[in-house]
Amino acid sequence: MLKLYYNPGTIALASHIALEESGADYEAKKLNPAIMEHTKPEYLAINPKGRVPSLVTDRGILTETPAILLYIAQVYGASAFPPPEDPYDLAQLQSFNNYLCSTLHVNHAHRKRGRRWVDEQNTAAIKAMEIKVKSNMEECFQMIEDEMFEGPWVMGPDYSIADPYLFTITQWMEGDGVDPADFPKLLAHRKAMLARPAVARVVAEHAAK
Amino acid sequence: MLKLYYNPGTIALASHIALEESGADYEAKKLNPAIMEHTKPEYLAINPKGRVPSLVTDRGILTETPAILLYIAQVYGASAFPPPEDPYDLAQLQSFNNYLCSTLHVNHAHRKRGRRWVDEQNTAAIKAMEIKVKSNMEECFQMIEDEMFEGPWVMGPDYSIADPYLFTITQWMEGDGVDPADFPKLLAHRKAMLARPAVARVVAEHAAK
Repeated sequence: MLKLYYNPGTIALASHIALEESGADYEAKKLNPAIMEHTKPEYLAINPKGRVPSLVTDRGILTETPAILLYIAQVYGASAFPPPEDPYDLAQLQSFNNYLCSTLHVNHAHRKRGRRWVDEQNTAAIKAMEIKVKSNMEECFQMIEDEMFEGPWVMGPDYSIADPYLFTITQWMEGDGVDPADFPKLLAHRKAMLARPAVARVVAEHAAK
Repeated sequence: MLKLYYNPGTIALASHIALEESGADYEAKKLNPAIMEHTKPEYLAINPKGRVPSLVTDRGILTETPAILLYIAQVYGASAFPPPEDPYDLAQLQSFNNYLCSTLHVNHAHRKRGRRWVDEQNTAAIKAMEIKVKSNMEECFQMIEDEMFEGPWVMGPDYSIADPYLFTITQWMEGDGVDPADFPKLLAHRKAMLARPAVARVVAEHAAK
């Protein structure tokens, strides 16, 4: 059986939603943020990078959200979100997901995880990073709203693994100081996602104490 | 015909090598860094993100290195570096490439592109970021050396699109203050890559004035 390790409030939500919507037989294991469980030796034996999500399969362990999502789509997504068979369409899907992982997620991380990129004692530099998160995220969301989002789903008429991924990052808007009303397409997408029963179930599970 | 837009010294080298090794019919278009050509309206019409590389195909334009590499492998790579048909193997390949794009490339970017994440006038914060690049890159290269690199190529006996991607980033070691001798597997990989005639041709083209 598949096993997904996650921390609530993180990008692991995307993979969790994809698993729930795929109908795959899986177990979701919530790590304990209070004790930084993702930094403990037991978890580092699963993912030496100390990040979430990790997906344990009967073949081995997968990490990195765009790769996990592609795997879920190819192996379990035939009915819910079949991956594009056409290489160009697949590349466009992966391109969108890569923009999320390499640019949006990174920009967001500068709000609470600035110590990754400067000495952790340098509170002035960490504060300077926090300040720019809002405008950086707004710029990215505007790029998606204007240039990338096809509608009604990210890639057009067909729901895909780009949808839970974008949804997860738009869940961070308010925390990053971004007003969702400034991005009508993305706000409508967020509402459409929350109307999907599997999404609502997983969001509730992540919100539970 | 395919057309690849690149700036020398950037991650675009990876896609350029993949094209050269694939045997695909393509043109490489070097942008002019002296005039920041990648920020001009003509280029933004090709890639509104203002980044390189961009790959113009007869179907449309692709951006984001892991997606471009996957496309080249699937459409043109059958003889040189066929993509894994098995979804798990493909996911592991994409996972490696995503680690490069979302962690190594991002860490590296804090040396010269710190203004992305703080006010560009904040020279103290920008300097604070530069200082940590060396240790961040060392940590990542150690992770690859110890946990990920299979040898002799990244994913094991078969050359893949992970190889030109890793090679491109190891080309940045000295500039980031990292001593390649500290990472014997990666140093041997870099030498093996440079011994490939197609790699040497593209590296020379990027180095030409």
